[in-house]
Amino acid sequence: MSDMTSAADAPRSPGRPRSSRADEAIVEATLDLLAEGSTIEALTIEAIAARAGVGKATIYRRWPGKDALLLDALRRLKGVLPNPAGHSVRDDLVLLVGAVGHNIDPRAAKIMPCLVPEVNRSPDHFRLYQNIIAPRRQLMREVLRRGVRLGELRADLDIEVAMALLTGPMLMQRMLRWHPELDDVLLPDRIVDGVLDGIRAR
Amino acid sequence: MSDMTSAADAPRSPGRPRSSRADEAIVEATLDLLAEGSTIEALTIEAIAARAGVGKATIYRRWPGKDALLLDALRRLKGVLPNPAGHSVRDDLVLLVGAVGHNIDPRAAKIMPCLVPEVNRSPDHFRLYQNIIAPRRQLMREVLRRGVRLGELRADLDIEVAMALLTGPMLMQRMLRWHPELDDVLLPDRIVDGVLDGIRAR
Repeated sequence: MSDMTSAADAPRSPGRPRSSRADEAIVEATLDLLAEGSTIEALTIEAIAARAGVGKATIYRRWPGKDALLLDALRRLKGVLPNPAGHSVRDDLVLLVGAVGHNIDPRAAKIMPCLVPEVNRSPDHFRLYQNIIAPRRQLMREVLRRGVRLGELRADLDIEVAMALLTGPMLMQRMLRWHPELDDVLLPDRIVDGVLDGIRAR
Repeated sequence: MSDMTSAADAPRSPGRPRSSRADEAIVEATLDLLAEGSTIEALTIEAIAARAGVGKATIYRRWPGKDALLLDALRRLKGVLPNPAGHSVRDDLVLLVGAVGHNIDPRAAKIMPCLVPEVNRSPDHFRLYQNIIAPRRQLMREVLRRGVRLGELRADLDIEVAMALLTGPMLMQRMLRWHPELDDVLLPDRIVDGVLDGIRAR
């Protein structure tokens, strides 16, 4: 079992080593328990070990504690960071807005909305959650700053409000299907163009 | 107990009749069970009756079934509809955006985010949920249409996208405290002005 600590970083293959399968089982068990409604408080290493069919020691050999395991498990839901091309601010924003609330794992739709209010009650959990979304948020902030610098966006831009205007509608739609009228493959384009142009008559 | 069916419509007073207290207890039990993580599926008239300390017949004398009781209980979380003054489109939008995600009951922060994904899996529950938010959404749609008619908003306004741009950021902030940088009493003003003016340089 000495290869346990690095196995999760190895490329996947149908014949991957037994230890990597244990890592997978542990992350899967964590996500399954959360998707079934477990709170972070109620989620214990014991419960995860039992669900994954491994011993607690197997988990502690790979992760220092519950928060580190949670961070890995929740990152797994999101997939890799998007990579803006850097040519057009509009196109980069469409790419980043399209990635908002997009999860490669269907359990995310159950886990994320329920998790966030809970996360906001605990400073530790809030930091954990910020660790997951901060890199994505920073990508968008940089695109907006570039737009201001290059004169494509208003010089007096309220960056934080602009981020909320771009991400809020997409997240509501992806997580909550808030406006059924808006289920549309072009939604990221419509949101970005709406935020760019504003709604006031000129 | 024959006054049971109309008691919930009577004005509240410290000396309200016993039957009204039973109605209160039933609605409170429903909200408590949801706030504790009960799914709509798992929420039964039996469970509500047990929690409220009443018989099932007491519930059925007041509500035809679980969905009608749920509708009353969830409406209770929201409070009364806002009432736009109709003078300035901007001011009306600030009022309506300020009411988005505002609940008079703190249990809403736990109930609403977790409920909506579930609601979206069942057409019956989706209708129930639309019954709760449709009147609020319609208020905003009418303000936007008035703005277009009076020439304050663009003639080619995409009304549904505009509604998403106005409500999405506020709802994310209220429900999920999405952008900690935006905790601010002026947030409705900042959102409305951002959506009115857009972010593109001119």
